[in-house]
Amino acid sequence: MLVMMQAHATEEEIRAVCRKIEELGYRAHPIPGETRTAIGITGNTGPVDASALEALPGVAECIAVSKPYKLVAREIKEQDTIVELGDGVRVGGPELAVIAGPCAIESREQAFAIAAAVRAAGARLFRGGAYKPRTSPYSFQGLAEKGLQILSAVRAEFGLKIVTEAVDKESLELVEQHADVIQIGARNMQNFSLLKRAGRSRKPVLLKRGLSATLDEFLMAAEYILAEGNYNVILCERGVRTFADHTRNTLDLAVIPAVKRLSHLPILVDPSHGTGRREKVLPLSRAAVAVGADGLLIEVHHQPDQALSDGYQSILPAQFEQLMDEVRQIAGVVRRTVSTPPALGQVAKTR
Amino acid sequence: MLVMMQAHATEEEIRAVCRKIEELGYRAHPIPGETRTAIGITGNTGPVDASALEALPGVAECIAVSKPYKLVAREIKEQDTIVELGDGVRVGGPELAVIAGPCAIESREQAFAIAAAVRAAGARLFRGGAYKPRTSPYSFQGLAEKGLQILSAVRAEFGLKIVTEAVDKESLELVEQHADVIQIGARNMQNFSLLKRAGRSRKPVLLKRGLSATLDEFLMAAEYILAEGNYNVILCERGVRTFADHTRNTLDLAVIPAVKRLSHLPILVDPSHGTGRREKVLPLSRAAVAVGADGLLIEVHHQPDQALSDGYQSILPAQFEQLMDEVRQIAGVVRRTVSTPPALGQVAKTR
Amino acid sequence: MLVMMQAHATEEEIRAVCRKIEELGYRAHPIPGETRTAIGITGNTGPVDASALEALPGVAECIAVSKPYKLVAREIKEQDTIVELGDGVRVGGPELAVIAGPCAIESREQAFAIAAAVRAAGARLFRGGAYKPRTSPYSFQGLAEKGLQILSAVRAEFGLKIVTEAVDKESLELVEQHADVIQIGARNMQNFSLLKRAGRSRKPVLLKRGLSATLDEFLMAAEYILAEGNYNVILCERGVRTFADHTRNTLDLAVIPAVKRLSHLPILVDPSHGTGRREKVLPLSRAAVAVGADGLLIEVHHQPDQALSDGYQSILPAQFEQLMDEVRQIAGVVRRTVSTPPALGQVAKTR
Amino acid sequence: MLVMMQAHATEEEIRAVCRKIEELGYRAHPIPGETRTAIGITGNTGPVDASALEALPGVAECIAVSKPYKLVAREIKEQDTIVELGDGVRVGGPELAVIAGPCAIESREQAFAIAAAVRAAGARLFRGGAYKPRTSPYSFQGLAEKGLQILSAVRAEFGLKIVTEAVDKESLELVEQHADVIQIGARNMQNFSLLKRAGRSRKPVLLKRGLSATLDEFLMAAEYILAEGNYNVILCERGVRTFADHTRNTLDLAVIPAVKRLSHLPILVDPSHGTGRREKVLPLSRAAVAVGADGLLIEVHHQPDQALSDGYQSILPAQFEQLMDEVRQIAGVVRRTVSTPPALGQVAKTR
Repeated sequence: MLVMMQAHATEEEIRAVCRKIEELGYRAHPIPGETRTAIGITGNTGPVDASALEALPGVAECIAVSKPYKLVAREIKEQDTIVELGDGVRVGGPELAVIAGPCAIESREQAFAIAAAVRAAGARLFRGGAYKPRTSPYSFQGLAEKGLQILSAVRAEFGLKIVTEAVDKESLELVEQHADVIQIGARNMQNFSLLKRAGRSRKPVLLKRGLSATLDEFLMAAEYILAEGNYNVILCERGVRTFADHTRNTLDLAVIPAVKRLSHLPILVDPSHGTGRREKVLPLSRAAVAVGADGLLIEVHHQPDQALSDGYQSILPAQFEQLMDEVRQIAGVVRRTVSTPPALGQVAKTR
Repeated sequence: MLVMMQAHATEEEIRAVCRKIEELGYRAHPIPGETRTAIGITGNTGPVDASALEALPGVAECIAVSKPYKLVAREIKEQDTIVELGDGVRVGGPELAVIAGPCAIESREQAFAIAAAVRAAGARLFRGGAYKPRTSPYSFQGLAEKGLQILSAVRAEFGLKIVTEAVDKESLELVEQHADVIQIGARNMQNFSLLKRAGRSRKPVLLKRGLSATLDEFLMAAEYILAEGNYNVILCERGVRTFADHTRNTLDLAVIPAVKRLSHLPILVDPSHGTGRREKVLPLSRAAVAVGADGLLIEVHHQPDQALSDGYQSILPAQFEQLMDEVRQIAGVVRRTVSTPPALGQVAKTR
Repeated sequence: MLVMMQAHATEEEIRAVCRKIEELGYRAHPIPGETRTAIGITGNTGPVDASALEALPGVAECIAVSKPYKLVAREIKEQDTIVELGDGVRVGGPELAVIAGPCAIESREQAFAIAAAVRAAGARLFRGGAYKPRTSPYSFQGLAEKGLQILSAVRAEFGLKIVTEAVDKESLELVEQHADVIQIGARNMQNFSLLKRAGRSRKPVLLKRGLSATLDEFLMAAEYILAEGNYNVILCERGVRTFADHTRNTLDLAVIPAVKRLSHLPILVDPSHGTGRREKVLPLSRAAVAVGADGLLIEVHHQPDQALSDGYQSILPAQFEQLMDEVRQIAGVVRRTVSTPPALGQVAKTR
Repeated sequence: MLVMMQAHATEEEIRAVCRKIEELGYRAHPIPGETRTAIGITGNTGPVDASALEALPGVAECIAVSKPYKLVAREIKEQDTIVELGDGVRVGGPELAVIAGPCAIESREQAFAIAAAVRAAGARLFRGGAYKPRTSPYSFQGLAEKGLQILSAVRAEFGLKIVTEAVDKESLELVEQHADVIQIGARNMQNFSLLKRAGRSRKPVLLKRGLSATLDEFLMAAEYILAEGNYNVILCERGVRTFADHTRNTLDLAVIPAVKRLSHLPILVDPSHGTGRREKVLPLSRAAVAVGADGLLIEVHHQPDQALSDGYQSILPAQFEQLMDEVRQIAGVVRRTVSTPPALGQVAKTR
């Protein structure tokens, strides 16, 4: 259930309603909207008795939530969620978020070379795996904490926001110290223990859609994170598994307007994993922005043939520059913008 | 195998090579390119002996074709195929082809009302089914020949090119008399008898991808048509069947660059069937143009709630107008154009 | 709608109800059951007025049909349909129907060698394609009418019932002259013109499930045949298309009990196409019988490495013998039998 | 790489080879076969130099492993792995393993009632979730440790072996104390941290196939467990996600012979999750045994309409009895047996 407060409800009234909800044995989730606050209720196993709440000062109405998910639903929050990452970097607002970098962090040299290139092309967020979930136990599994330290150095040096994956509670604890956004990968989309732990983090979470996840399952996975109190969740479509063999996965761009309709959360597209083919990253990036995505997640490598993982789907810095250029033009058509990072000197000063 | 003629080869030399191929018991398919002609050979069950052909005047070289398809392959023809429909309407060139109209022709009034609307918004091709393949034998199956006559009247009145589906040889014979483009639907993509018959038609063919067709199967289906001598084939992506349930089908936009890489044939996108949801047609149309499609196939109905089929995926004329407007802007980014039909008076004069 | 006649209704009463239905502008389909006859009504676009029919002598009640399909539904006919092929060969009764033979008829010698072998192992039905729908226009397309003549010779010589595929109206007209059962292949499952033509044939029809057909679509395709008056339809599961790559298709054995629940039609399983791997035909045949299928469709070739199509999924005669042996034992557990063909001398006599 | 020891190689020789492998910086996995021991090598990033090993006493030959997986491959161990659970209960041998019980442990009363029923029908292994991965954060998530205590009581009372799921490292640590087999669910099939932890457990692991896992990914997930030193892995097919909507998932029975061909590990089938429909559990259980599965995982509930999860796919004790009866008969055909648990009195005595 959802308690809609009146537009002029005071902070104190909102707190009182939350207290009452907790007294009833549930959990209260106050979600501020543009004109008024909604309070989501979780923890109930059956319907909640509205009468005890509707009588409280400042309450406008109690409404039943028609979807299995509550906190991620548009019903609770009409406005788009904008995840603030600091220094003017936001995900979900009018400005597109472009996250670029290598599949895996391989060395300080590699990370810095790629960071410099993607920053020059206009990216404001840097990706790179320190913990790599690999199909084979014998494949490169990432540099672990050493990789995270390199990522921290990238932020210090280039002023880029850091997005990197956590694969279990131990890595999540380290990731949240080093990163600006904690990524949960497709294979862990229904690793509910990890989702709950991410929900107790203060860092925003980037949640990738599982390879065979329906839209409902995807939103319910996000709900696990919000239900623990972390409302800064960014969704990411990265292709689903089908019979089609001309790409590694089938990028399901129709899920973008579908998510926008049902949820207030921002959603990005990862055309690198979504196609698994270098030459398809550019056209699908254009398509993703045209369809209404809030940004992109792009694998870039300066020496893709020597990459320790996923080299065949990484694009070169020069291709990324072209991508940014074309994406900027498409963005204009859909009334979005792509900002330019501040000059490097300024970064240094603010640090 | 493929015989590449020299750039300065004469018509007579090309004819002589074709004659030799036929003498050897095969079929010759001369395909003119920008600088030189390639001659495809079909009808062979094993490898063709190149020596008998390489010695002929004007022959540059004989090359083995590495793909299971020959005539649809880029190897035989580097330049994009442009299908000419007359009056300056083309599919495959710099100008996007937008085919709009109702799912089914229901009456002269309905067809004219929608034709006027889509023409006003800028469409130059009109679609509408006279023969409807329906899952249930008890559903409306189309007006048949009467529907074709209405389509002919639409062309006469509005100067729109007509695209309509044939479902068997009998209907194809009528469709080729009334239409400018013969459509083969997704369910018939591997109805090889129908493909062969379409290959013997002089009218261009629009071939829709089957619901579970791989890229190779899709191109091989087109090859059936070309192998019979009809080189004017337009492909169309219309969504594939997956587990995803937020759309009727999953639109596979990555197939567009994949087709462009392997084949010289033009390819359109049908976001109406591809999503099956009215509100997703506009964003997916933008995405389709952004990814590089040669055009769109859009279901438009002025009274979708009363449509005899597929009303829930048809958009209103006003929505189509907005779609054309946004598509025109995206087209600019990918160096494509969307032309405006000539004034109606001019149409009348040319008829 | 469905008119249920009383148990003691006379032939004349049944005919009178049918006449009345036709007078109302619909089509009547009398379906005799064990104790009483049901009359299906098709051709109506809206609900039928029951009052005009309920008043007629012999009518027990009129009941609305809750499924989109009518004539294939259990609601209209509680007992399993048994398709009689003569000489004691039946599909759908307690005895399993095993149809065996090569993918394609290649020569009289090949067909006879395989026919002798499968007959010796206990098969009573022989399969072999004279018309082959092939992905590539350059692959062997079958011997056409010459293949049908060989099949007729196989029947005369070995007393086997013949099952062979028709791919269009022309081939269907020839197939119905030579075969005992007309096969409609998976790719043509929604070739509605072909289904309607098969519905006007007097020969039973074997309808294979399309590669991405839902259960409803499969049953609706069968409904097309019954709606034209041919009630002898045999369904066949042959695998659906999924992401799985360890078999050519994914055999969906759960569809067998699902069909049995909803429909009175018999259903076979084709593990040869369903797996596309020779070594999996035997275990999946056992599973198909165990799950409750009414029989099997098995590709057998005496020289699979030289087969003109699908050699890698054909089993050898000795493997087929073992298959029949194991299937016979499983059949016993599920209260089914596998009969033995009469001695060859007896066949000669009856011809 | 794989070091094949000679048939008469001594324990000391085997140990010496392992020591040498470890000295080279790799990990040695001695796998005893029927006639000789194979030693798998993991931890190498490139090819291993065979010469240093082939010279050692007792070594027959060094062979390169052709598959991405090593320890799970038939190449390293020709004989089927038999997982010993004590008291004569085995998974993978001639006797079928039937694991039965409720989806979730709800109470001591519920667990005992169902345990008594499934034991009476012949099951020797009991399943029941104490930790339930649920799509919604608001669904019943299991009784956790209290559930494990109830399971321990079931073992003490009924002498049934206990199989229950672990969802993260914390729960795994408790599960390995209470259970005989640790289950890893489909959603966690690529939770590599959990797989590695399970690989360090001394308890056998039941690994369920992910909803969209290819055969290679499934075997690689098992490889993660073996690579850590736990060779007692039992695989389980539980249906994959497809477009088909007549069952919750599509049970892929062809994966059973495919696994048997490539791997020495035992594989079970879970027709309860595989179909999600109570009435399909019995026929698909017969089919699973017929196709060659090493056993079944069946959800049984005495009051399915009141079950806290998955009630609609649980069968009643009486249906389970019939299932055991039919399975026993099919088992005979495929040369497998289904044993009967010892009388309850005897259980008590051995404890």
